[in-house]
Amino acid sequence: MTAALMDGTAVARRSLDDTRTRVSAYRETTGRTPRLATVLVGDDPASHTYVRMKVNRCRQVGIDSLRRDLPAESTTAQVVATVDELVADESVDGILVQHPMPGHIDERAVFDAISRGKDVDGVTANAFLDMANGHEETFASCTPAGIVALLDAYDVPLSGKHVVVIGRSSILGKPAALMLLGRDATVTICHSKTRGLAQFVSEADIVVAAVGRPELIRGEWIKPGAVVIDAGYNEGNVGDVAFGPAAERARLITPVPGGVGPMTIAMLLAQTVSAAEQRES
Amino acid sequence: MTAALMDGTAVARRSLDDTRTRVSAYRETTGRTPRLATVLVGDDPASHTYVRMKVNRCRQVGIDSLRRDLPAESTTAQVVATVDELVADESVDGILVQHPMPGHIDERAVFDAISRGKDVDGVTANAFLDMANGHEETFASCTPAGIVALLDAYDVPLSGKHVVVIGRSSILGKPAALMLLGRDATVTICHSKTRGLAQFVSEADIVVAAVGRPELIRGEWIKPGAVVIDAGYNEGNVGDVAFGPAAERARLITPVPGGVGPMTIAMLLAQTVSAAEQRES
Repeated sequence: MTAALMDGTAVARRSLDDTRTRVSAYRETTGRTPRLATVLVGDDPASHTYVRMKVNRCRQVGIDSLRRDLPAESTTAQVVATVDELVADESVDGILVQHPMPGHIDERAVFDAISRGKDVDGVTANAFLDMANGHEETFASCTPAGIVALLDAYDVPLSGKHVVVIGRSSILGKPAALMLLGRDATVTICHSKTRGLAQFVSEADIVVAAVGRPELIRGEWIKPGAVVIDAGYNEGNVGDVAFGPAAERARLITPVPGGVGPMTIAMLLAQTVSAAEQRES
Repeated sequence: MTAALMDGTAVARRSLDDTRTRVSAYRETTGRTPRLATVLVGDDPASHTYVRMKVNRCRQVGIDSLRRDLPAESTTAQVVATVDELVADESVDGILVQHPMPGHIDERAVFDAISRGKDVDGVTANAFLDMANGHEETFASCTPAGIVALLDAYDVPLSGKHVVVIGRSSILGKPAALMLLGRDATVTICHSKTRGLAQFVSEADIVVAAVGRPELIRGEWIKPGAVVIDAGYNEGNVGDVAFGPAAERARLITPVPGGVGPMTIAMLLAQTVSAAEQRES
C-alpha cells in the first residue's frame, strides 16, 4: 500500500474537540447551553441507533438534546406540528429530523417546516439552493460537508481539479458534486446508467464514491496519485471502492469504516453550535 | 458544413401552436382565459424589452397578461407584497418576475414568495430542488427546460451519453446539468477554473455551452458526430461556440440566434397553460 490514510475518526475528533471548546465559551458568554432537538418517527432500529449516537455525541461535547419520538402512524401534519413547536421553542438551536421517515409521510413538507436558522442538517429546499449556489447563509448537508472538510483537513487542492462523483442521490452524490463545484473543481457525475465508468474514474484527480455498491470501483481504475473518498457503506464494512488495490495507486484514501462516516455527526454538532452563536449575534 | 441545424425557432413555433390549441380548449371547458402576471422592477431597457416580448407572445397564443411595473426604488417588502397579491389573485395562473432586479432587492425573498402552483418560471427554491431530484410536481426553469425540449425534438438520446456543460450559473449551467443528469446522462460541469477545457469538450457526446464568452469553444474541440447546444448569447449575435468550424464536425448544432433563445418563452407559455389546467384538475 502506497496511499496515506485519510483518518476521518481523527479529523472528526479534532472537530468535536473544537466544538466542545466553542460550547464552553458559548455557555460562559450567554449562560445557556446549545440544544439540538431530534425528531424520530416510527420504530426503525437503524434510525433509533443513529439518533442515539447523535444524542450521545451531543452529551460528549456539552450540547443539550431534546428528543421528540413519534409513533410510526403519525401523520405528516402531526410531524410538521412537532417541528413547528421546535421552531418556536426558544431553548432549541438546531433541529434534526431523522430520515428516512415512514413512507406515508411527506418528508419534504416536514423538512421545509424547519426554519432557516435551525436547519443544522441542511435539509430544507433553501439550504439545497444555497449550497448549489455557494451561498453560506444556511447550513450544509452534513455528509457532503464532511467530505469537503476531510479533503480540507488533508490540504487537498480542489480548484481546477477533476472530481468524479459516482452516485447521484439527493442527500449525497448531488450535494457533494455541487459543493465541490462551488470550490471550483471540474465535476463529473456518474451513476448506474453511465457507460465507460472505468474510463471516467481513471481520469479523476479526486474520486468520490457514493453509490452503495460493494467494491464497484476497482483499484486498477484509479489514476496513480489520485485522492479517493469512499462514502459508500455496504454490509460487512465494505466500501464502494476495492480498498486494497486502490490504495496501491492512490495518494490518499479513506478507510471504511473510519473515513467519511465519523465526519457526519461532527459536522452536525459544529453546525448546531454555529446556529446557537448566530442567534446571539 | 456537415451538421444539421437544430431550428429552435421552428420547434418553438410548434410548441406555441400546441399552447394556443390548449388555451382554446381550456377556454371552452372553463369559460376563462389563462393569465400570466409579470412583475418588472425599475427601468432597465433590456428587462422592459423581455417583458414586452413575453406579453406579445402571450397575446399571440391567447393568454391574458397582467403587468405589474414597479419603480426602481421599490423595497423588497413592496415587491414581495405585489407577488403576494398576485398569488392571492384568482384570475392569475402564473407569475413571472423579470430578473435581474435592482441590486438592493433580495431576489430570493421575492422568488420564494411565489406559490408552487404559479411558479411557471421555476425560480423558487422548491422548484430548483424538485428539478435537481427529477420530481415533476413543480415547473422547470425555462431556459434549461428549453434545451432539453430542443434535444427531445431532435430525438437526441440522453441516457448514458456524456454531456459536457460549460458554465455553472444558477439559472442556466447548473440547472441544465441537473436536468440532463435526471435524464440519465453522465454530466461534466466545466467553468472558468477548469483546466484542459479542450480535452473535456472533445470527449462530449453533447456539448452545452452556457458561459457567455464569444466563441470560447473552438470548432476543432468538438468530437465528430457530437451534438452542440449553444446557449450563449454575446453581442453581435455571436454564441459561445465558434459556429463554422464546429458545424464541420458536429452532427447537430444550434444556430445563434434561433437556437435556444426562442425556446425559453415557448416553455414559459406552455407552463402557464399547464398551471391553469392543474388548477382545474
